[in-house]
Amino acid sequence: MDFQQAHPNPANEVMTHRLVTVRARTEALCTPLEIEDYCIQAITAVSPPKWHLAHTTWFLETFILLPFSPGYRVFDKTYGHLFNSYYETAGTFFPQQQRGLLSRPTVADIYRYRAHVDEAMQVLLKNLPQQSEHDIFTRLELGIEHEIQHQELLLMDVKYNFSINPLFPAYRQTATDLTSDTPEMTWFEYSGGIVEIGHDGSTFSFDNERPRYKTLLNDYCLGSRLISNKEYLAFIMDKGYQRAELWLSDGWQTINTHKWLAPLYWHKEGTNYQQFTLSGIKPLNLNEPVAHLSYYEADAYARWSGKRLPTEAEWEHAASSQPVTGNFLESGTLHPQAAVKHGITQLYGDLWEWTQSAYSSYPGFDPLPGTLGEYNGKFMSNQMVLRGGCCATANDHIRASYRNFFRPADRWMFSGLRLAGDTK
Amino acid sequence: MDFQQAHPNPANEVMTHRLVTVRARTEALCTPLEIEDYCIQAITAVSPPKWHLAHTTWFLETFILLPFSPGYRVFDKTYGHLFNSYYETAGTFFPQQQRGLLSRPTVADIYRYRAHVDEAMQVLLKNLPQQSEHDIFTRLELGIEHEIQHQELLLMDVKYNFSINPLFPAYRQTATDLTSDTPEMTWFEYSGGIVEIGHDGSTFSFDNERPRYKTLLNDYCLGSRLISNKEYLAFIMDKGYQRAELWLSDGWQTINTHKWLAPLYWHKEGTNYQQFTLSGIKPLNLNEPVAHLSYYEADAYARWSGKRLPTEAEWEHAASSQPVTGNFLESGTLHPQAAVKHGITQLYGDLWEWTQSAYSSYPGFDPLPGTLGEYNGKFMSNQMVLRGGCCATANDHIRASYRNFFRPADRWMFSGLRLAGDTK
Amino acid sequence: MDFQQAHPNPANEVMTHRLVTVRARTEALCTPLEIEDYCIQAITAVSPPKWHLAHTTWFLETFILLPFSPGYRVFDKTYGHLFNSYYETAGTFFPQQQRGLLSRPTVADIYRYRAHVDEAMQVLLKNLPQQSEHDIFTRLELGIEHEIQHQELLLMDVKYNFSINPLFPAYRQTATDLTSDTPEMTWFEYSGGIVEIGHDGSTFSFDNERPRYKTLLNDYCLGSRLISNKEYLAFIMDKGYQRAELWLSDGWQTINTHKWLAPLYWHKEGTNYQQFTLSGIKPLNLNEPVAHLSYYEADAYARWSGKRLPTEAEWEHAASSQPVTGNFLESGTLHPQAAVKHGITQLYGDLWEWTQSAYSSYPGFDPLPGTLGEYNGKFMSNQMVLRGGCCATANDHIRASYRNFFRPADRWMFSGLRLAGDTK
Amino acid sequence: MDFQQAHPNPANEVMTHRLVTVRARTEALCTPLEIEDYCIQAITAVSPPKWHLAHTTWFLETFILLPFSPGYRVFDKTYGHLFNSYYETAGTFFPQQQRGLLSRPTVADIYRYRAHVDEAMQVLLKNLPQQSEHDIFTRLELGIEHEIQHQELLLMDVKYNFSINPLFPAYRQTATDLTSDTPEMTWFEYSGGIVEIGHDGSTFSFDNERPRYKTLLNDYCLGSRLISNKEYLAFIMDKGYQRAELWLSDGWQTINTHKWLAPLYWHKEGTNYQQFTLSGIKPLNLNEPVAHLSYYEADAYARWSGKRLPTEAEWEHAASSQPVTGNFLESGTLHPQAAVKHGITQLYGDLWEWTQSAYSSYPGFDPLPGTLGEYNGKFMSNQMVLRGGCCATANDHIRASYRNFFRPADRWMFSGLRLAGDTK
Repeated sequence: MDFQQAHPNPANEVMTHRLVTVRARTEALCTPLEIEDYCIQAITAVSPPKWHLAHTTWFLETFILLPFSPGYRVFDKTYGHLFNSYYETAGTFFPQQQRGLLSRPTVADIYRYRAHVDEAMQVLLKNLPQQSEHDIFTRLELGIEHEIQHQELLLMDVKYNFSINPLFPAYRQTATDLTSDTPEMTWFEYSGGIVEIGHDGSTFSFDNERPRYKTLLNDYCLGSRLISNKEYLAFIMDKGYQRAELWLSDGWQTINTHKWLAPLYWHKEGTNYQQFTLSGIKPLNLNEPVAHLSYYEADAYARWSGKRLPTEAEWEHAASSQPVTGNFLESGTLHPQAAVKHGITQLYGDLWEWTQSAYSSYPGFDPLPGTLGEYNGKFMSNQMVLRGGCCATANDHIRASYRNFFRPADRWMFSGLRLAGDTK
Repeated sequence: MDFQQAHPNPANEVMTHRLVTVRARTEALCTPLEIEDYCIQAITAVSPPKWHLAHTTWFLETFILLPFSPGYRVFDKTYGHLFNSYYETAGTFFPQQQRGLLSRPTVADIYRYRAHVDEAMQVLLKNLPQQSEHDIFTRLELGIEHEIQHQELLLMDVKYNFSINPLFPAYRQTATDLTSDTPEMTWFEYSGGIVEIGHDGSTFSFDNERPRYKTLLNDYCLGSRLISNKEYLAFIMDKGYQRAELWLSDGWQTINTHKWLAPLYWHKEGTNYQQFTLSGIKPLNLNEPVAHLSYYEADAYARWSGKRLPTEAEWEHAASSQPVTGNFLESGTLHPQAAVKHGITQLYGDLWEWTQSAYSSYPGFDPLPGTLGEYNGKFMSNQMVLRGGCCATANDHIRASYRNFFRPADRWMFSGLRLAGDTK
Repeated sequence: MDFQQAHPNPANEVMTHRLVTVRARTEALCTPLEIEDYCIQAITAVSPPKWHLAHTTWFLETFILLPFSPGYRVFDKTYGHLFNSYYETAGTFFPQQQRGLLSRPTVADIYRYRAHVDEAMQVLLKNLPQQSEHDIFTRLELGIEHEIQHQELLLMDVKYNFSINPLFPAYRQTATDLTSDTPEMTWFEYSGGIVEIGHDGSTFSFDNERPRYKTLLNDYCLGSRLISNKEYLAFIMDKGYQRAELWLSDGWQTINTHKWLAPLYWHKEGTNYQQFTLSGIKPLNLNEPVAHLSYYEADAYARWSGKRLPTEAEWEHAASSQPVTGNFLESGTLHPQAAVKHGITQLYGDLWEWTQSAYSSYPGFDPLPGTLGEYNGKFMSNQMVLRGGCCATANDHIRASYRNFFRPADRWMFSGLRLAGDTK
Repeated sequence: MDFQQAHPNPANEVMTHRLVTVRARTEALCTPLEIEDYCIQAITAVSPPKWHLAHTTWFLETFILLPFSPGYRVFDKTYGHLFNSYYETAGTFFPQQQRGLLSRPTVADIYRYRAHVDEAMQVLLKNLPQQSEHDIFTRLELGIEHEIQHQELLLMDVKYNFSINPLFPAYRQTATDLTSDTPEMTWFEYSGGIVEIGHDGSTFSFDNERPRYKTLLNDYCLGSRLISNKEYLAFIMDKGYQRAELWLSDGWQTINTHKWLAPLYWHKEGTNYQQFTLSGIKPLNLNEPVAHLSYYEADAYARWSGKRLPTEAEWEHAASSQPVTGNFLESGTLHPQAAVKHGITQLYGDLWEWTQSAYSSYPGFDPLPGTLGEYNGKFMSNQMVLRGGCCATANDHIRASYRNFFRPADRWMFSGLRLAGDTK
């Protein structure tokens, strides 16, 4: 690779600033953690915070510094194996279920690794090889969005890790939501017809949001807000978890195998419920949106209610006319808040909303070339799409076309549910 | 329930004839079996032939005789528990994975059970209570189609059961396919636009094929025939099973966990392959369609080939203009046959064709009321749709709108693949 | 191998008679079975009756006919793989946990196999090659005893297979034990000192009973009879299964994992217990010995009672002065009977008695040469010794030095318990 | 409990000094650890160092301070649940397999817990309630020995935890053993007869070493030293891991399931072996004793060699006449050293020696009363006895009668093997 001295470039500065800001926010999110908290992995699906810190750094090193920064000195040649997540074509990787067993490299080592890569990134961006500028910017944008994704993962993973500890540690105290009531549910109608779905391509998006395509919708309606704890409790009291006819077959097996009787993080004490949060264990606030549901639970609730979940196209069609505002990471609540506004609300932020759409490719889907093609495309089986971001998602990370995806039994992410219905 | 003497009724005779014919065909399919063959269950997913014989009988008893035939005497009150498959709302059921552990009731007992129910059905149909005629016919039609489904299951289950036996027993000798060559693959183009998909409702269909709805298709093309063993072998030789980038993540894990290196029933001997069939072990005929693929393998082959799998809407749109003819159960081959015709062929029969569509509800889906609502609807997660029937499907059972579904890792059914592509 | 015409030989006739008698008894034990019953294997530890019939035949074929009968024609060359149990040095074997999945060879095939081998054995014994006479007789004796062991296994396996069937089939109706009471427990004292243990070598024994060796015993006492259901029920009522301090750690884990609350085959109905037997389900007779206990349960009962289990040396020392009489297979009860006699009783027959001795080699143990060395010796880890035979053991098969062995969690054999104590 | 001012007492000072010394040594052993190293648990069988620090403290708090120190203030009431290991009768305990998932309490918290309990212990010992003096000293002695056991566990657990890290961290650099050769194996003969085995009771021992009892031994011989890596390598080269006839059945299954081809911590590189040690990865020193063997491997080697493992009585009889000297924790090597002396050597220290004796109770065994009766007695199934201590055992902790025990498949402890033989 040919390296040339690049001219000062305002785009560089913008990108450098974005990178530095995001990298700093990741570390700021770790401030409340003890060294011990950085290392644990309570189930295979979650990763230790230390690993998130290292993996996002490895991403920049592997996909930007190694191919584009000729003089770059690898920080530690064993890290490629340790911090590759799942990129089969980028080499081997340490088994996911053992990430919590690596006491070394230490947390201090990982911060040194971050500093090393951050410095190299800034050097590269200051001296941008002109012929690679486009490729570097493209990958850097991905690297930044990737790190923001891991900020959210870090928070939801810490929550799970803490939740299995009988001491119920708090990650950070936040103000308690005192909302005394939530607006009544109303229904917003949308006209069907041929609509366009997917990212229009002028700004950043992931490959799985593309290409924008036309699809045909029937008329439909959406509930004005997320389903609340009070509403979900009515489902529980109506023996929702005991009535097989409300559940998908896989869901019925899941709740019986794991003996689920309520959403994740609910603890029954006598006849009341407590809820584990990032601020520790708290009385369940009935006005808040019900959180940490599996797809199976969201689906069963919808069937019980006589409604259904929206498709992802319906959701996107409705959401694309709304401003991207809501209860995001920036609010600092780290917890979904009770709806307060009338009108269609909570589409963005608070909780990811389960859709009834299986995660699959859009017509004409073209994954990123090479190893980065593994980023999204290879997960297109046995997963369902969720939309809208949550209280641990950064505001500037989300958009109407954004597709998140989890397995139907997952529920450690901030997931919730909004109902949809057909308009006759 | 009020029982009234009914008048002679030509519809009765038609339905009675259909029932008797189908029930007899089930038993005829068991002719090659030894008593011992009726009892085994090599994996949880397959059922012993004895169980199929009993379960289809239980279906008629439970959904027709018990509600509609007032004087009906239950053959054995324990059978409700033993031969209910998965209807949670119809009572308890014996664990699926233990169906092969019940030596009693004996095969002879089950044939007596069948005769008892068959006789009671004929009595009921001769003396049809007028006010229930519609309900009875509706359920009888379902009972007949249900039994035909189990005929296919019985054959594919016997095949699997025999396949793990080192003696490789033959179910029945059939003529060997001597086709010396297969027509070259050509591509048939279809125009997109708004099309109607789903059953139009004038004749029998399952609830999951309804309601007919409009959807928007892009222009697309389909391969003229199923992919052959020769073509699939080229994928294997090109290290298809060793290249992670060709596979969905779940698929890559599946083939590595199970050490799959070829389709189910292929046995490598030196550099050649043998194939286990219902006629025993045979040299692999390269012209025949490749059979017993998982979704993951079909998907990987498609990615390798530069094409893709069709959606179920594309498949149905193309197939609905074709006559429902092909290599079905009635041909007696019990094995997919090499394509011989030019033009678009093999859409029906030979092998079920994997689509890229996850099995889900059509807009406005309305499951059957009550327990029969569990027939199809509750399986709408983690499964993919297959279309077109196979060499073990009865000809009159299939139609363009028919939706079969399996989990992506399943491959003991007669599954194959046809490629699709986009038309620019 | 050199084959010579042998002279008529009375030993031949004796051995031939024994072989024919034992082989016939195996088949007689199968008389109550339906074809379907021959094929099932409800858990890995049990084997289908068909397999027992074949394996005992394979044993004669492999260890006698093949090495010593030059012209012997193998019945089916695939049977070596199918019916070898666990002899690693005799070739491969079909996986134990799949024995119930082989519908072929059929039961009729296996009876033909038996007839073929029986005939060849008789021909060989009539024309005994003189130089091999000793070896053949040695192995034949082992083959006969081996078949008798499998007769017992067949019965205990059938019992288990039937027990998981909701129909609770009866193997054979036997007279119900009407004993109205059982003698009070008394204690028999034995003086310690240096005693000889093990088989003295003049007649047949297994290699694990040899060599006879000297050991030192303290004074000890044995309970006069087996512990009864009534006594065991008192342990259950005293919360025996809920009190951790009564259990070995592995035992506590076992009963909690499997949710054991009573011996195998006990079914609680309200406040009473039923017991599954080879005659079907019956009310629990409180006077009968408690049967189908794991070692953990026997050990916990002993700890609860303030006594202990005997060592195998203590048991043998006490039993060697007693006549080998009791409730054996020949009685036809197929069930342990209530003690009726005063004095030390039930040492032989009724139930195998758990000892506190781990199964290990006697000092100077010398396993049989070659493959037959795998018969007993390789199981000397993680198993405990049981003594005395049971109601499914043939009378002439048992002796004071006979060592049976099972894993501590096993309980599908006819196992029971007798207490021992120290004499101060 | 009545508390009385106690008089100054020289025994107090001795015991206080012993306690303080041992407690300090535990913490000194943690000096090389990073905070992160304190928290991990690579397999269920090992525990995080943090847990060892806390559990040994809980032991003193639970069994001494709570019953005998009336004014004692519990440090944290949740710790009873978190740091109880397996005492069922002392309350609930956190699941063993999740010990590595507790980031809180932090390492600093645990050191504070230790200081709190240490101070309370010293106060109690200074003001010893006279009427409880005997009980307190008895339990304190047990508490001290318990902590020493956990020092050894801590080291062997750290070794395992580090071994699965691709970075192969070193716990502490120690001098490399440069021994160029090891003395030839010779055989030491011992006369049999009635011998006394077990602790004689005048000083501390665990309950499982008591009561001293008489047993009868045949004449036997022992190898002069432990088997070396060179000798074990000959077994490997002779296809020891491929020959079923050398293995116990459970052992054969174990090595094939886990694909074991060498002792734990051996890494093959080309034709040479490296060995992971507490000093990191090192070339295998052929003169050192072979370490980290399972019972199955020790047993297979013995069978291959034509010898056998000693019984625990043989071992103790031979060892009781030898001085308790050897390569213990105090040497600082933390690794077995090559034998250098002629004569019978290495009986103590270097490696725990597998015996062929299953771990069971001695005649007349009387476990400690109450909860402490769970210390040893409840593990008397499915385990084998090892003798003599190892390089991680404190010198004053070991004695001829000391019985260690592990499951036959365990090999993460410092285990080795010495051969025995019969003397004709």
